[in-house]
Amino acid sequence: MSTPSTTTPMSQRDKNRARTRRDIETAALEMFETQGYHATTVDQITRLAGCSNATFFRHFRSKEDVLFANDDAAARELARFVDERVDRAHTLGALAEPFAAYATSLLVEATSDAQRLTRLVMTTPDLEARSLRMRLKWEHAVSRTLASESDSDRTSFDDVLLASLAVSCLSTALWRWQEVDISDDVGTLTKAAFESAVRLGSR
Amino acid sequence: MSTPSTTTPMSQRDKNRARTRRDIETAALEMFETQGYHATTVDQITRLAGCSNATFFRHFRSKEDVLFANDDAAARELARFVDERVDRAHTLGALAEPFAAYATSLLVEATSDAQRLTRLVMTTPDLEARSLRMRLKWEHAVSRTLASESDSDRTSFDDVLLASLAVSCLSTALWRWQEVDISDDVGTLTKAAFESAVRLGSR
Repeated sequence: MSTPSTTTPMSQRDKNRARTRRDIETAALEMFETQGYHATTVDQITRLAGCSNATFFRHFRSKEDVLFANDDAAARELARFVDERVDRAHTLGALAEPFAAYATSLLVEATSDAQRLTRLVMTTPDLEARSLRMRLKWEHAVSRTLASESDSDRTSFDDVLLASLAVSCLSTALWRWQEVDISDDVGTLTKAAFESAVRLGSR
Repeated sequence: MSTPSTTTPMSQRDKNRARTRRDIETAALEMFETQGYHATTVDQITRLAGCSNATFFRHFRSKEDVLFANDDAAARELARFVDERVDRAHTLGALAEPFAAYATSLLVEATSDAQRLTRLVMTTPDLEARSLRMRLKWEHAVSRTLASESDSDRTSFDDVLLASLAVSCLSTALWRWQEVDISDDVGTLTKAAFESAVRLGSR
């Protein structure tokens, strides 16, 4: 969802457009969550949203497009957790805490449509191929955040690698979380993934 | 490319179909490598392959489809290197050698169309989103190989995580390799990525 600028006031027309877009997203999300992504049609979404299919396609190219309407916001959110972490080192250990907090905010406290959509993409086995786009956005956002903490003006090999390793830990934890009946909460599971990663490197 | 069965002899019609498919793949690869993936049209591919567009679309749904015609074979190839490794441990250290050997076979010695297509996908910045599909295939193939070495009949959390971490090392090395003028060979670069990963975990 595009964030309205805070400096330029939106026209009534823009406001209506933004509201329609949000209505479509909310309707799509509700259908995806209740009956599954694949079983949901654009017709069902527009019926629930109270708009025409033509209106749907003015906002989204496809049903899949709705899934990724918020992926930039989700990536920025993870980068914010990394940016605000206590341990400033560029190590897997220092990223375990902010990644676990992000996973919890995403899966346990998910309240916004952005969070619910990301949760849907990352925990639906059928959407595994699509979930890769989210992983790539996360990798880019985290490596850019790490790079901004260095003196160098370009992203180093280690920043890119560390972001990729950390996102591997997060995705593995999220997949494990949805896969079976797990009593662990997702934050604990994410921290465990980072600990396993360190162990798989050192033993 | 579908591998012909070794037990059932192919009919002449099947042989012709397989040859046409190979001709299209080879033509597409040549166009992609010489003028870039995006600049290449299906028309140009079929002109070079000496077939009609209708024939092209009987074999491939799209231009993109050709890129992934061999991804299962590429994944099996990486799994074979892992399967034949000397150090049988399930650690990043044990996977550095087979992954480096695979990277070298892929980027330096690439002779088959399968290898050339994978090299193209993994080292073309414009194809980054598409390269994720290859990463996913690699992750699955490696985690299955690791799982087959355990007594357990299902893939463990650590197998999935280790495969994902190792593929992160490989992809970061491949991207670095294409990004700048690097004097290191890709095998050395891949081993360095594994060493960095261990360091990023432990320090």
